[in-house]
Amino acid sequence: MKQHLFIFFFLLIGPCGFSQADQPAVKEDFKPSTLNQPGQEYPQVNSQGYARFRIQAVAADSVGVSLGLGGKGGTKLAKTEDGYWMGTTAGPMDEGFHYYNVNIDGGKFNDPGALNFYGSVRWESGIEIPAHDQDFYALKDVPHGSVHQVLFPSESTHTSRRAFVYTPPGYEKDQSVRYPVLYLQHGWGEDETAWTNQGRANLIMDNLIAEGQIKPFLIVMTYGMTNDVKFGRIREFDVKYFQAVLVDELIPYVESNFRTIADQQHRAMAGLSMGGMETRMITMNRPEVFSHYALLSGGTYKPEDIRDKSKVKLVFLSCGSKERPDGVKSAAAALKDAGFNSVSYISEGTAHEFQTWRRSLRELAPLLFRN
Amino acid sequence: MKQHLFIFFFLLIGPCGFSQADQPAVKEDFKPSTLNQPGQEYPQVNSQGYARFRIQAVAADSVGVSLGLGGKGGTKLAKTEDGYWMGTTAGPMDEGFHYYNVNIDGGKFNDPGALNFYGSVRWESGIEIPAHDQDFYALKDVPHGSVHQVLFPSESTHTSRRAFVYTPPGYEKDQSVRYPVLYLQHGWGEDETAWTNQGRANLIMDNLIAEGQIKPFLIVMTYGMTNDVKFGRIREFDVKYFQAVLVDELIPYVESNFRTIADQQHRAMAGLSMGGMETRMITMNRPEVFSHYALLSGGTYKPEDIRDKSKVKLVFLSCGSKERPDGVKSAAAALKDAGFNSVSYISEGTAHEFQTWRRSLRELAPLLFRN
Repeated sequence: MKQHLFIFFFLLIGPCGFSQADQPAVKEDFKPSTLNQPGQEYPQVNSQGYARFRIQAVAADSVGVSLGLGGKGGTKLAKTEDGYWMGTTAGPMDEGFHYYNVNIDGGKFNDPGALNFYGSVRWESGIEIPAHDQDFYALKDVPHGSVHQVLFPSESTHTSRRAFVYTPPGYEKDQSVRYPVLYLQHGWGEDETAWTNQGRANLIMDNLIAEGQIKPFLIVMTYGMTNDVKFGRIREFDVKYFQAVLVDELIPYVESNFRTIADQQHRAMAGLSMGGMETRMITMNRPEVFSHYALLSGGTYKPEDIRDKSKVKLVFLSCGSKERPDGVKSAAAALKDAGFNSVSYISEGTAHEFQTWRRSLRELAPLLFRN
Repeated sequence: MKQHLFIFFFLLIGPCGFSQADQPAVKEDFKPSTLNQPGQEYPQVNSQGYARFRIQAVAADSVGVSLGLGGKGGTKLAKTEDGYWMGTTAGPMDEGFHYYNVNIDGGKFNDPGALNFYGSVRWESGIEIPAHDQDFYALKDVPHGSVHQVLFPSESTHTSRRAFVYTPPGYEKDQSVRYPVLYLQHGWGEDETAWTNQGRANLIMDNLIAEGQIKPFLIVMTYGMTNDVKFGRIREFDVKYFQAVLVDELIPYVESNFRTIADQQHRAMAGLSMGGMETRMITMNRPEVFSHYALLSGGTYKPEDIRDKSKVKLVFLSCGSKERPDGVKSAAAALKDAGFNSVSYISEGTAHEFQTWRRSLRELAPLLFRN
């Protein structure tokens, strides 16, 4: 177990969001980020992936954003004559979604121009660097599923807990169809809103279904109870509390309130980063519950980790090319050699961020519940 | 029409959130607001309704929050020795939910301790002053309905638009039951998230249903397209674009995707503030669509505004006691004299804020779809 936690930590601290390649001249074709608050002109992004920020704080002494120098302190903004602070990243950012925050005179705030997303155990600002493959998670003119917010009773935690359930287009209309279910976990610092807000999981599904690439299934997302443990002390995390909520409370709720196929063969579990760590632990602890396992930048299995090979229909391992792709590929190969249906996927040019996980979901979904 | 817009404006600029009564000594029983981000100690509220703020910005020259002096500039914070800025409102706040923001050296930001809520055409910080009647919108151990996020096709605006649909407990289980529908609008500066996030409409319904006080119905909430018009120029607002989306696009979508009773007698429309103005205009323009009308701090009807009395089952008018209660009461009385089933409700001790509208929904719900 310790060995895998070590790998998990290594994955977690990979380079974040900043391409260290040669830095071309900055093109002046900046446009508002698609994740801005309504009507807000800043932050902006250009066709090369540079991000430009503008913050109003006329009497501040120092303003910076946390994005832009590969973890080395972000981008300092400079004061303009009209009372704004402006600055552009020193190089292009990786494609996709990035969290960031704004430092004003020593305090951590959000950019008033940007929408907020829950990460780092706080609502952070978000920015979207247009990706060459952004079409697969775009809002298109196709039939859309819905995302149900449910409050399910949890005896073990003495409260009602929130979950989101994606149901595919047509779910409400044809009452005769029942569906398999993917239980999909966020990472450390995030919560049950991450996979639809940052990950656009519902739009990825709508688009895959419209293209006929997958058999429709439900996705259930709830809070993995990961954030009570401090980031540097994740090895102290005990999965048993969340396992009880997920397996003994949420799954029965979903199966009695949604039209599911309620057996092990039609349940999958996947998670990103620390959600992958949870997926790995819970699938190992409770092999009778899930048949499809997926760890997205969230560690690996060794063949001997899995007690009963006959119960496992798929093991999917993925990460970004800027993480530890060799570890993921060799683990998947060892599983395949041991007779598992194992698949690895490496997201090219991305790190431990949501573009890796959006792509991983797109790759994973067609492999689920094939037979 | 102009006369009613005038009343609408007057309602809108009533006193906001600050009780101007005698100010007792501040009790030191402050606790974190229930709307804080997970684990955040500030902002805090005490048993008298005072709010206390703490912001970290060690090198700032000036920090203040927009709440606390009845619209006269809010509360200035003072620097503490450990690099925080702290301050307490000069008096108790009105019960319930308040929007606010933080001014750091001339820039408008959110409080990193508080959750955000969409109002004033931006995501604002929110704080909850415990109310004597907070039980009716509390999260309780009762069966919970769900809130579906749907994306419905809108030809008139060339996009998929978002709506939230509350379905009562048991909706998914008993497929034989069909339900009436309340279309419920937010106010200016807000969006389709307001009625569940700030208003707790889903919890109000869950609790009323658990107590057997209402016949269950669906609630549909979508963006009223109110925010493209600047606050001071609301009389330039043209309801026809939203009316087309609501009546010609959203209602058919809801009626083909949810188990509704799809006739005029089983459709209600209500709105708060500018959403009341929309409700008034749309119910007058399209009397064949809705049978129950409700304006919450959103103007009034005169008897002659309503063309066909026989089609209208309920006219509900409400506001806070700190708004213009006499106007609401006299309008409801005139409607009653003219033979309408008219009801008025005044929320005691509250202004043009969400506590007024939470209570209004609680009062309205039992009156809907009675026969």
